[in-house]
Amino acid sequence: MEAVDAVPVHLNGKVAIEDIDLMVVEAENGNKQNGREIVLGRNVHTTCLEVTEPEADDESTGDKEAYMASVLARYRKNLMERTQHHLGYPYNLDFDYGALGQLQHFSINNLGDPFIESNYGVHSRQFEVGVLDWFARLWEIEKSEYWGYITNCGTEGNLHGILVGREVFPDGILYASRDSHYSVFKAARMYRMGCVKVDCLVSGEIDCADFKVKLLANKDKPAIINVNIGTTVKGAVDDLDLVIQTLEESGFSQDRFYIHCDGALFGLMMPFVKQAPKVTFQKPIGSVSVSGHKFMGCPMPCGVQITRMKHINVLSSNVEYLASRDATIMGSRNGHAPIFLWYTLNRKGYKGFQKEVQKCLRNAYYLRDRLRDAGISAMLNELSSTVVFERPLDEDFVRRWQLACQGNIAHVVVMPNVTIEKLDDFLNDLVERRSTWYQDEKARPPCIAADIGSQNCSCGLHK
Amino acid sequence: MEAVDAVPVHLNGKVAIEDIDLMVVEAENGNKQNGREIVLGRNVHTTCLEVTEPEADDESTGDKEAYMASVLARYRKNLMERTQHHLGYPYNLDFDYGALGQLQHFSINNLGDPFIESNYGVHSRQFEVGVLDWFARLWEIEKSEYWGYITNCGTEGNLHGILVGREVFPDGILYASRDSHYSVFKAARMYRMGCVKVDCLVSGEIDCADFKVKLLANKDKPAIINVNIGTTVKGAVDDLDLVIQTLEESGFSQDRFYIHCDGALFGLMMPFVKQAPKVTFQKPIGSVSVSGHKFMGCPMPCGVQITRMKHINVLSSNVEYLASRDATIMGSRNGHAPIFLWYTLNRKGYKGFQKEVQKCLRNAYYLRDRLRDAGISAMLNELSSTVVFERPLDEDFVRRWQLACQGNIAHVVVMPNVTIEKLDDFLNDLVERRSTWYQDEKARPPCIAADIGSQNCSCGLHK
Repeated sequence: MEAVDAVPVHLNGKVAIEDIDLMVVEAENGNKQNGREIVLGRNVHTTCLEVTEPEADDESTGDKEAYMASVLARYRKNLMERTQHHLGYPYNLDFDYGALGQLQHFSINNLGDPFIESNYGVHSRQFEVGVLDWFARLWEIEKSEYWGYITNCGTEGNLHGILVGREVFPDGILYASRDSHYSVFKAARMYRMGCVKVDCLVSGEIDCADFKVKLLANKDKPAIINVNIGTTVKGAVDDLDLVIQTLEESGFSQDRFYIHCDGALFGLMMPFVKQAPKVTFQKPIGSVSVSGHKFMGCPMPCGVQITRMKHINVLSSNVEYLASRDATIMGSRNGHAPIFLWYTLNRKGYKGFQKEVQKCLRNAYYLRDRLRDAGISAMLNELSSTVVFERPLDEDFVRRWQLACQGNIAHVVVMPNVTIEKLDDFLNDLVERRSTWYQDEKARPPCIAADIGSQNCSCGLHK
Repeated sequence: MEAVDAVPVHLNGKVAIEDIDLMVVEAENGNKQNGREIVLGRNVHTTCLEVTEPEADDESTGDKEAYMASVLARYRKNLMERTQHHLGYPYNLDFDYGALGQLQHFSINNLGDPFIESNYGVHSRQFEVGVLDWFARLWEIEKSEYWGYITNCGTEGNLHGILVGREVFPDGILYASRDSHYSVFKAARMYRMGCVKVDCLVSGEIDCADFKVKLLANKDKPAIINVNIGTTVKGAVDDLDLVIQTLEESGFSQDRFYIHCDGALFGLMMPFVKQAPKVTFQKPIGSVSVSGHKFMGCPMPCGVQITRMKHINVLSSNVEYLASRDATIMGSRNGHAPIFLWYTLNRKGYKGFQKEVQKCLRNAYYLRDRLRDAGISAMLNELSSTVVFERPLDEDFVRRWQLACQGNIAHVVVMPNVTIEKLDDFLNDLVERRSTWYQDEKARPPCIAADIGSQNCSCGLHK
């Protein structure tokens, strides 16, 4: 997305709404990226499953029941095939929650605050708080000093973290690298915050030299920073220590910045990699979020959001109807998700995760090396299991393997369910088809040095 | 919550951020309502289920597996008891989704736009769009003219509807009655919108005389209105036609207002009540939302949000990573919820819902009449199954029946799973205990005429 470096217009010491208008303009122009039209997917209206009114005699004939059973059976088969051929998104599709099937009959709702029992009794707060405590230990913050909740997805974690930041610093400016998840820029627009996009290094990490320049240009306003613990496309980990150092060098003391760590996928992998820099509340960060359906695996999207208790008191207001307080983004909250996470954490534990992380990193190296051996441009960031490579020419191939693409690059995220056998299948399929895409001289594999660095590019010029 | 009628401060024709500061102050003072401290529930930390690291020999001994199975069995028993004794929240706890248990093994995620197929193949868009089409028919808008999605809860619907309104009218003022759901005021604060609270009639409906006064005081700004199709506490239905008429009489033409209908519970019940005024896109409304876990019943919270296609183009921006566009609040979206809704709609159909609505209204009348017969103050709005009555004195009783309370009133929401037998159990329990609460002369049942009108109050003064 073409960025507008929205250096705020000052107006009686307040951030004026002009800043936000810039964001709107940007979004409206967002159909083109670097001059390239985005090809959106097919419209679903043609394939949708219509709801039909039951016939009067349905109960006796059983026709409707039979029709629905056949739809579901076909759908299930399709899900199995699609689960088998999935490589592009960071979801661990390998889980077994059979023991929890018995709970599907209940309407479990953790409405309101996780730590305050509400009058609605069909909840799972005891599981939710158990899970939150586990993450608080992982990220080194005392039980009495943190607040958090199980969210509906990574986006909700980012929306919450950035909202907390804005409430702590109402006139703060949001800084985020260009490779940050789109929900970060959505938050800026929703919350009417001034937002400054920071450049990235080729790896996808935030460029702290550029960050410093932009901080210095806005020294009179507090800084709210989104730090990526694994970017969406390249799996790059922003250097948290360098970000903090840059803030300090630019004259921002700890009472003038708020850091939200978007740990979508790697927030849960990094703690298990020995040499990785630590995400911890021992450092001056305000919040961390991580997705639950990514590395851990869960039937539905969910996430974990942890922040400091002292910040949440700024945000929350009491809602008597719930006999609770309102500090979450959503009101009613899925009570099944915490039980899935509790179950996985108990079964696997730290050691189980460590083993899985090591397997993923090993398999990611394997994929990168085999791509390179086949003469295909590829990059794998340290601490990451996201292998970035040349975008396949054929959109059917992209869809078959459910690859995520951006510009000339695609990626595979190696999750615990991605085995060497699956990678071999994929590689063989890719190498075979690719030979047909580039068989005559007219078409050449694209140069992607600008995306992944010339040392990783195998195009005609760089190989 | 004590209201601040935030008549916006004008500043170069923009809504200044001073308006929002009022909202913040209000939220900070929110601990007291009408001078009465809110009693928040118990802290869950004492009862939480800790996650423990597995032992090295767990796999061979099976100890961990056995421990978890015992926790789940106990939990399930507790859920059954709590489901049995639930009356206060508008959730239909009676559903049978056994046929869908087979899908729990899949990580179903409808990330991005429902109508545009993304590269992630393990989705349920074909069910989602089928459900949306059903609601579009219900609310009378053509397939080609609407846009919508299945949300995570009623709050997400309100957050979306109000955000669409703000994007259509960036300097619009949000009007909502004091009895609106707390998420409406949360939205105003999140989105930094000027917000004006409108008074209510005793029934809980919006007071259009007060609405008119407030509109006329802010004639230079477009109006964004939250209309309640069933308020949270009293189940009052705002008169949509009168709201529109008031806008027109106050000089607001259709290109200067946006109406969001919060149909949380009754949005799905009203269409099946013959004499009820219609919620329809044939009238100049911008969006309607309804909860899926309320009247329909669903294991996890969810909702339906429908708006006009022309509005969504203002909001959306394309996200190449998803091969989709980003017009939802959340990014990753629960793909199981649409299948639950699709299944219920197909099984019950219009006729099934109609029968259930009639049963609920009948049972609600029964409850109100029996309360009155027992000398207990009670009110039931027309078109509603929410019975409002004198708050029980004993908090243990409130918790036992999971009643929702506010000030001196409590309510029971009569849902399809609430039978006459359950109501009789509740009534007998209440009448028996109440006789002990008020046995000596010192304690008297409270007067709640201010909440429900003197004709409904059975206190010493009014009976």
